[in-house]
Formats: sequence, structure tokens, C-alpha cells
Amino acid sequence: MLLNKINDPQDLKQLTAAELETLAEEIRQFLIEKLSTTGGHLAPNLGVVELTIMMHYLFDSPRDKFIFDVGHQSYVHKILTGRREQFDTLRKYKGMCGFVKRAESEHDVWEAGHSSTSLSAAMGMAMARDFKGEDNRVVAVIGDGALTGGMALEALNHIGHEKSKMIVILNDNEMSIAPNVGALHHYLSKIRTDRHYQRAKEDLQQFLNRIPAIGGKLAKTAERFKDSLKYLLVSGILFEQFGLTYLGPVDGHDMEQMKEILKQADSIQGPVLVHVITIKGKGYLPAEADSHAWHGASPYKIESGKMIKVVGPPMYTNVFGDMLIELAEQDDSIVAVTPAMPGGSGLLKFAERFPGKMIDVGIAEQHAATMSAALAMEGMKPVFAVYSTFLQRAYDQVVHDICRQNLNVFFAIDRAGFVGPDGETHQGVYDIAFLRHVPNLVLMMPKDENELRRMMKTGIDYKDGPIAVRYPRISGVGVELDADPQPLPIGEWETLREGNSATILAIGPMIQVAEEAANLLMREGKSVEVVNARFIKPLDETMLRRFAEQNKKIVVLEEGSVLGGFGSSILEFYSQQGLYNIPVKIIGVPDVFVEHGSIQEQREEVGLTAERVAQELRAMLPVQIRRVSTSQQ
Amino acid sequence: MLLNKINDPQDLKQLTAAELETLAEEIRQFLIEKLSTTGGHLAPNLGVVELTIMMHYLFDSPRDKFIFDVGHQSYVHKILTGRREQFDTLRKYKGMCGFVKRAESEHDVWEAGHSSTSLSAAMGMAMARDFKGEDNRVVAVIGDGALTGGMALEALNHIGHEKSKMIVILNDNEMSIAPNVGALHHYLSKIRTDRHYQRAKEDLQQFLNRIPAIGGKLAKTAERFKDSLKYLLVSGILFEQFGLTYLGPVDGHDMEQMKEILKQADSIQGPVLVHVITIKGKGYLPAEADSHAWHGASPYKIESGKMIKVVGPPMYTNVFGDMLIELAEQDDSIVAVTPAMPGGSGLLKFAERFPGKMIDVGIAEQHAATMSAALAMEGMKPVFAVYSTFLQRAYDQVVHDICRQNLNVFFAIDRAGFVGPDGETHQGVYDIAFLRHVPNLVLMMPKDENELRRMMKTGIDYKDGPIAVRYPRISGVGVELDADPQPLPIGEWETLREGNSATILAIGPMIQVAEEAANLLMREGKSVEVVNARFIKPLDETMLRRFAEQNKKIVVLEEGSVLGGFGSSILEFYSQQGLYNIPVKIIGVPDVFVEHGSIQEQREEVGLTAERVAQELRAMLPVQIRRVSTSQQ
Repeated sequence: MLLNKINDPQDLKQLTAAELETLAEEIRQFLIEKLSTTGGHLAPNLGVVELTIMMHYLFDSPRDKFIFDVGHQSYVHKILTGRREQFDTLRKYKGMCGFVKRAESEHDVWEAGHSSTSLSAAMGMAMARDFKGEDNRVVAVIGDGALTGGMALEALNHIGHEKSKMIVILNDNEMSIAPNVGALHHYLSKIRTDRHYQRAKEDLQQFLNRIPAIGGKLAKTAERFKDSLKYLLVSGILFEQFGLTYLGPVDGHDMEQMKEILKQADSIQGPVLVHVITIKGKGYLPAEADSHAWHGASPYKIESGKMIKVVGPPMYTNVFGDMLIELAEQDDSIVAVTPAMPGGSGLLKFAERFPGKMIDVGIAEQHAATMSAALAMEGMKPVFAVYSTFLQRAYDQVVHDICRQNLNVFFAIDRAGFVGPDGETHQGVYDIAFLRHVPNLVLMMPKDENELRRMMKTGIDYKDGPIAVRYPRISGVGVELDADPQPLPIGEWETLREGNSATILAIGPMIQVAEEAANLLMREGKSVEVVNARFIKPLDETMLRRFAEQNKKIVVLEEGSVLGGFGSSILEFYSQQGLYNIPVKIIGVPDVFVEHGSIQEQREEVGLTAERVAQELRAMLPVQIRRVSTSQQ
Repeated sequence: MLLNKINDPQDLKQLTAAELETLAEEIRQFLIEKLSTTGGHLAPNLGVVELTIMMHYLFDSPRDKFIFDVGHQSYVHKILTGRREQFDTLRKYKGMCGFVKRAESEHDVWEAGHSSTSLSAAMGMAMARDFKGEDNRVVAVIGDGALTGGMALEALNHIGHEKSKMIVILNDNEMSIAPNVGALHHYLSKIRTDRHYQRAKEDLQQFLNRIPAIGGKLAKTAERFKDSLKYLLVSGILFEQFGLTYLGPVDGHDMEQMKEILKQADSIQGPVLVHVITIKGKGYLPAEADSHAWHGASPYKIESGKMIKVVGPPMYTNVFGDMLIELAEQDDSIVAVTPAMPGGSGLLKFAERFPGKMIDVGIAEQHAATMSAALAMEGMKPVFAVYSTFLQRAYDQVVHDICRQNLNVFFAIDRAGFVGPDGETHQGVYDIAFLRHVPNLVLMMPKDENELRRMMKTGIDYKDGPIAVRYPRISGVGVELDADPQPLPIGEWETLREGNSATILAIGPMIQVAEEAANLLMREGKSVEVVNARFIKPLDETMLRRFAEQNKKIVVLEEGSVLGGFGSSILEFYSQQGLYNIPVKIIGVPDVFVEHGSIQEQREEVGLTAERVAQELRAMLPVQIRRVSTSQQ
């Protein structure tokens, strides 16, 4: 195997063209085999095998800075930079990250996970280089989907203004995770496929070439015309208008062609965009045939191309998708809005049932949020389906456009809490902290999939402003689903288990942890109340006052940031009420970024386990009971 | 006066062309006079007099939806929709808002304050109209500066994809608040002014017209060529490539021309962009001459064009700008980054002193933040100067790019706390709540302008990750400035006044309120400690433990959201330490949006006054002291 001899990009540079082809083939086989057991971003990486080889062959990492947008397409880069043998630990706890990770290699210079950051990163690195008087290359690889993210367009505008030297490789595979939408997508398609367009370019060239042969007055006009229109002579005129030199399109699986064009790009002084056409999933037929499904693959059988599915209760995501269809059957005003995640958000069936009512805006969370605000302003009921971590992108729009105007937008916040193998860039542990201080917003989290349905009914019925339900990236608990789910009274919690010594206030999947902890303590003769705090905002103040009256110790469990989180709102309530003696202990995500692993491992890392909760309660109970009873005599 | 007869847009429709011109003139005079006493966004509104008249003349508000980006250019719209007489209360407490405000008029259909939301709003309104089968117009007015905001570009991409009918009026005055930057700006300049470009267009037309006269083989090529290149024949090809029909450019002060072009726009089925060239400040010479300074004007003398300046200590903004120069004299790695606010952020002198080191990226907070991350990654010390309210736009970039990668970015967060007349869209009351839960970030606020200098020194020296200083939109307190400001130990608070009964923990300008409250109580024989909690994060845990040991009652004062704010972090600390008996009362901004008025009025509204603080302390002190001493016997 040639691959086994490549431990550093330097090892590539001696290879012949034929050997590079062999290497590409070996890398594809390696990826297909390794990921069949670990799972991972198969299709994106199969698409960039030749591109990544060529980057390392021609350029000089880590002196030259390679920036991979999102970073899920960095597996080939990892293989070529000495991490081949770590692939068995891919996306596992304490194992190799599924994204670019600086701690892993000096060749990893920029981390991401969220889309569309690479151009800003490249710009900053190029400017820093120029300030320092250095001359390294800066090379960004960005997908055509990521290019529609607002910050990438902001960067494009700035790059074209500053004119710093850099190479932007547009990896055009016509996909974000889902097929792309948007005018830029149509534009790129036109460059790729529109013969009319290509012909226009050729004809113009041909025509201009002939002009000197024409005499008389026309010749002079023609000459001026020729001068003036030079810049129209490129396919990528949009990028030229943004101030970048456009090269391409080029076949991203043809290394000779890419070598040519990347060398050409390297010889240009300002910013260059190289338009590379790749096939997502290239070389593995099932992935080529359905690159959407194979974007992030579960473990699979190589021969059959069947992913191995775990049997169990439906995912919350799917319960959401099904319920939305039921609701939309009865309410014409419902429209679903997604920023490029129709599959991940469980909206594909909805889109089939209500074509035109699933509005996929592309990777554009800000626009999605504010467009939802306007839909609500005009009487529609937009359901903005978004991952917790990506809603971070629309924080200002949530505050300024939706909540400040108090509009009836329904947020369906998926992937709330730990997300497992995607790791720290994707954890949904901040949404409570960045949402609960925003006026007018109601925020819910269900204890099970049936309650998710009830909350969706609640949210659709609610007409007093914005309302959000957050749910985790896991399967439901397997409860039966009500055929006709009833709405919940806003702000009312639910006591799931009575108990006289303490109360565990838990949200979402933490309720099961609370129940287990209560069971542990029951065996020790302590009876602990468990409350489903299904409304994160507004709080159930009646119940909170009852706890105070009963001198309950309170433990709050949340799979989210302790700082500014749900538990913090309980502390604030008692403080504002002047109830200063209520012991409240919060167990949640501490003030660190939690890395990849399984959700269970992540919970264990921060102490969100029944044993730890029981331990906290044991520590609180005897001492605190004595102290409080003394002070009340 | 013609103006006095216009109480509704309907009153416009009967006017002759000459009368409309007279009206425009009267409106200009009205604005110049009224704003000379109230202050306000003079220059932007002088620029859109004819445009707004024409919109109301041709279209049918409120049936047709007018969406003003940002909304500071809506004064003419307010005049024409029956609010002429409210201009004396402009931007005053309980008076007329300086932006679009739905509560004021049915003609106000979309509120903003932050830039670049109008296209998403228009898109949502257009889609809602189509879903409902209605046929009203949707007309957005967006400046060329706002167009570079990422979310506007996201919306443009989606508008060009969906093809819903709407009119986007690009109000091109070559300015954001400051002169525009970016490739789009150059592109628009080219359309406006580049004779080469205009000539190319004309020549191409002329040339194509002559082609039929040419015989032989060339004729056929030419014919195909003509077909193919039709779409190159427009000035605004960039917008055409985005999928919008482009019309223009047109003189925005020529109502006949605008009437023509807007009618033409209205006859087109899909989205149209009308490129209107206006002069910011039109009709008032001082404002035309320096539209940057006259964007938001203080009261002024009409004849001299001199703004009335209040004499007093320097604004925090200016202290920041001066100190940054001092620091950059000694440290080559410092670069300033601003999203289109070089003046507002106090960076103009810095830019003069260090040309090229003030990077104005245009209205592009996301890009600014992530580019700063990359600059820091490569060893520069970026100082990201941004208003608190606009930093909301970059929340995800702060979390995902800067803090997660733990990069040495220095945030200078201006306009923290209440901002006065700009009102609810601009209040800087959420930054603590959306920043303090983000790992790795140090967050400071100075008690006075000298401490701001020390904090800047602290921030520049700090090499362990991101660090932020927030400061208010007011003058300093008038202290002397150290010539050689010394850095502060990270996380160390300062006791300003000793006291044995209670402690007031205050930040920024709230320290003066705390001192006054302590003075009030001193007269009643109660001695109250005042602490400058200058590090919002990390907390001074030593001091917090001391308060607990001393059985202090604690009052926290912050001009920011109580929910998730600084006080909340004090509650969390005691909870996590198991110190459950510490009375902590937080006085800050409650869970509502606080509207425009003076900063003092806004403070009074939420109870951030010495009298209220004294009252809270009186309520806490006698009762609480007895209870605690009992429980400790």
C-alpha cells in the first residue's frame, strides 16, 4: 500500500502522477472501510480526495494555511498529515475529532463545525500575514452551500475590497447537506451546465478575435467595446464583480487539471476563486446515489450500502416531523422554515405532504429567523425548525426582530443538550442561556415524545408572541402517543413523584436521571419529589412558592450551561421574592466546552448521572435540614 | 403651507407635479427646523424626501407594505402619515420613536433599528401574501451600506430563488453611517460613475444594433452572440445574477424619473431592484458637506450648522480611542476592527495615526468577529470595537470561533447599558447575559474613564484568551487620567467604601448610584460597603466568600438584564458553594424592552436610582440581620 508510506505531506511530493492516482484510490478504499464501522462524514470526504491530495502536493502545509469550511471534509487532510491510524477512534470519546482540531496536528490551523466561517478566517490570516510581512499562502476550501451563509458573503465583500492574496477553492457539489437552494446555486449551475452560457463566452471571444478584420467606423467602436468588455469574458462574473479573480470551472477529480489551475491561481497577486466541481460521495455508489443520506453516515455494510439502524422508539426529530403534518392538516397558516436542514430537522415528509410550505432558505439562519418574523406579522404561523447550536447564528434576529416585536413565531429547537460525536462545536447547551433573558419568549422542553406533541399543539395554539420547544438528539422514551394531544397551560409544571425531603427540578431527558436518583435515595429511606419543569420560561411560580413553604431542598438538573441556565432562573426567582434561605443546587454543564463522545459519556463527564445527583442530595439533606429547622424555631 | 394639509397619504394623490416639488421643499424645511431642537437622523431623512413622497404618491400604504431598513430614514414617512405634530417629542421619553413603530401608526408595519433586516422582512411578507392569495405590494427601502450585512445577502439569495413579486429600492448614497467599504460598494460606484462601464454598455448596444448589417459567417455567430449576451446588457448584472430584475440607476431627487421607474418596477412580476441615487443630507449644506457627522445630529444652530455640544468630561468612547493610540504606539500587533462604526466607536483618530490598521469591514459583525479570531490566531492583537447591541449579531462567532478556540481577541463593547434616545432596539442590556456563559471569556467594566484605560492595558497584555471591556454611552466621571495606566489583576474587585451591614456590588456607572445610596443610608446610621465589581467574569471569589463570612446582605446593581445577568452569577456562585443563606438582591433591567428616552429616565423606569436602592436595603436590613443571627446561635 502506497498509503502506508504517507505520514507527512512531504511524502507526497515525490510521487508521480500515476502514484497520486493510486493514492487517491487507496484513500477512498480506506475511508469506505474505516467509516463502515465508525460512521462519519463519508460523502463529503469522498468528494475531496483528489482536491486535498493536490493541495498538499502543490502547497506547503503547515507553513501555508489550509482552512476547511465546517471541517467535516478534513478526513483526507487528516490521513495525509499522519493521522491514518487514529481513524478507528474517529468521533469517539477522547478519540480523533470529526472536524479540524488544532490539538491534533500542526497542520490543523483553524477549527470549525458551523458553516461559512472559512472566508473570514482566510481574510484574517491573509491580513495578519501581510501585517507581519510574511509570504505564506492562505487557502480556504468552501462548499457552494456554505457560500450562501451571510457571513461568507460578508467576507466575500471584504475580500474583494482589500485584495489580499489568497486562494478560495469553491468546492461545488451542488449540495449543502441537503440539495442547495438559492440564486447563487442557480448561478453556479448555470456556469456548470448551461451551454448557452458557455457558448456565449466562447462566441464573445471568437467574435472579439475577428473584430480587427472589420474596417471603418465600426472598427473603432469595436476596439473600445473590446477594451471595455474584457471583464465580461469570464464565467464567474459574479465573483469578478465581487473583486476576486475567477478561475474554472475545473473537474475536481482530475488531478492534472487541478494542478494546472491551482498553479495558475497561485501566480495571481490578489484573491482568486477556483471553482472546482466535485461529486459528493465519489467512488462509492450508494453515497453517489444519495449523497444527502450519506452526508453523515451511521456505520454501514460496505457491500449492500445499508446503514445499520438501531431499533427503538422514534427520535424526537421524527415525532416533531409527523406531528407538524397533523397540525398543518388542520391549520392552513402553518409553514415550516429550515436553514438547509430539511432532513436533519425531520421535515422531508412534511415537504412531500405540503409542497411549497417547507421553505428551505439555504444556510441562512439570520434570514430564516427574520423572514419567519415577517410571515408571522402577516398572519402565518411559521415553524422555524433549527438546531440549538445553529440558532446561535440568529440570536440578534430572535431578540430584535421576533421577540421585540412579539410575533407568533414557533421555534422548534432540535439537538438541544449534548449531541454526541459531533462534539463541542455542535453542543446544544447554550440555548437556554441565550434565550431565557429575552422578553416575551415562552420556552418549553418535553419529558417524552408525547409531551413534545402536546407542546407543539400548545405552540401552534399560542397567539401571544413567540414560543419555543427544545428537544434532544435522541430517541423518545417509548410512551404511547395521544391521538389528539391537548395543549398545556402555559407555565405549569408537573409533579411526577411526591417526596418530602427534597425536590429535583428536571427538564427533558434529565427527568429520567432524576427518577433514577430518586429511586436510589428511596432505598435509603429518603423520599424525593421529582418535578417536570416543562416550562423553562415562564416559571411555575406557584410551585416554586410551595417548595419554599415546604422548606424543600432543591436540585436542578439540566443538560445545559449552569451559567445563566434554567437553574439560574430559579435562583433569581427566590432572590427577587426575597426568599433568601432556599437551598438550590444546580447540576448542569460547567463553564467549559465539552468535546465529542457519546451523549452518555458527555453526561458522565459533567456529572449528569443518577449517582452524582443522589450524592448531591445526600450531601444536602442531613446538614441542611438541621440548619433550617434550627433557624425556624 | 401645503404640508399642513397632508394628514394621510391619500392627501398626496391629488397633488400636481409642481405641488409635489413644493411639498418636498416644505418637508426639508420642516425637518431642518424641527431637528435643530430635538436632534435626530437628519442627513438620512433629507436624502429620502422625494423617494418617500413618490412611494406614498404611487402606492397604497398601509395596504401596500413599506419596509424601511433600520428605520431611521422614516421621518418623511411619519410626516406623510399624520405624525407631523409629534415631531417636537421625537426620540423623547414617551414621545415619538426615531424609528418605525407599529404602535404609532397603521402605516408602520415593520420595526427595526439594526440594519439589513428589510429584505428578509419583505420576503416573509411577500410569501405570506402569496400564501393568502392576496395582491398587495411589498416595498423595501434599503441603503447600500445595509446591503452588505450578511443577512441582507442571505435574503437576496433567497429572493432571487423564490421569485416572489416585490420591489427593493436600493437607496444608494455611498454611505452606511460612515463611508461604505467593500466590493459591493465599488461595484455600485462603478455603475454610478464609471464612464468606461457606462460606455461599454452603450457600445455593446450600438454594436449589436449594427450586427445585422454584417453579412456572411460572422452574421450567424453574431446572432447567437446577441441572443446569448442579452443579460449582460444591464448595469446591475450582479443583481440580475442574483435573480432580481435591475432597474436604474435613477436620480432619487427627480420625482418624474422616479415615478417612471417605480411604475415600471411595479409592472414586473418577480422581484425588482430599483437603484436610486440619493444625496445624504440633501438640501442642507452642512449635512451635505459632512453627512457622516450629520447622520445622527445633536441639536444645532440652523444658520451656522454648528451642533450644540455639551461641555464635560470626555465620553468613554473617546477615552477608548485615545488610549488605543497610546497602546498601539508600543505594540505593533494591535489592529482595530469595526463593523462600519469608525466614528461612533471613536476610531477616527486611530485610523489617522495608523492608516491600514483600522479595518472597517462594513456592516458585517459576523465577519468582523471571525476575522478577528483569525488575526489573533496568527499573532495579531485585534481590538474588535463594537456596540453592545450589534455584538448580538456576532454571538455565534463569539462562541464558536473566538471563545471555543480561546483566541486573544480584545472586545471593546461600547454603548453597554441604556443608550437613551435610540431606544429599545439599541439598548446594550443583554451583553452580560449572552456573554457570561461562554467559556474562556474575561469580561470587565470600568468605574471611570481612568479605569477604562487600565482595563485596556489589561486586555492588551492578556495572552490567555478572549477578553472584553464594556463601557457606557456617556461621559466619564471627570477623574484624572494616569499617564502610565497599570493593568489590573484578573478577577480582583475593589472595595470603594467600607461598611458593616450590607454590601452593594455595582458595575460601571451604577457605582455612583451605589455611592449615593450608601450616603443616604449613612444618614440613617447604617454603614454600607460599596464594591466595584469590575470583573464581571471571573468573579472575585475571595471577596464573595468574605461577604458570606461577614453575613453581609448583598445588593447587586447592574444596568443590564436581571435575567442571566451579573447578579445571577453571584447567586450561582453561592449556590455552587453550598452557601444557601446569603441574601442577594438584584436591581437591574427587568424582563421587558425599555423604550426611548434619556438614560436617566430609563434608569428611573427600572428603579436604578439611589433612592430605590436605599429602599431595598432598608427593607433587607433589619429583618434579615435578626434572622441570620438567630440561625447562627
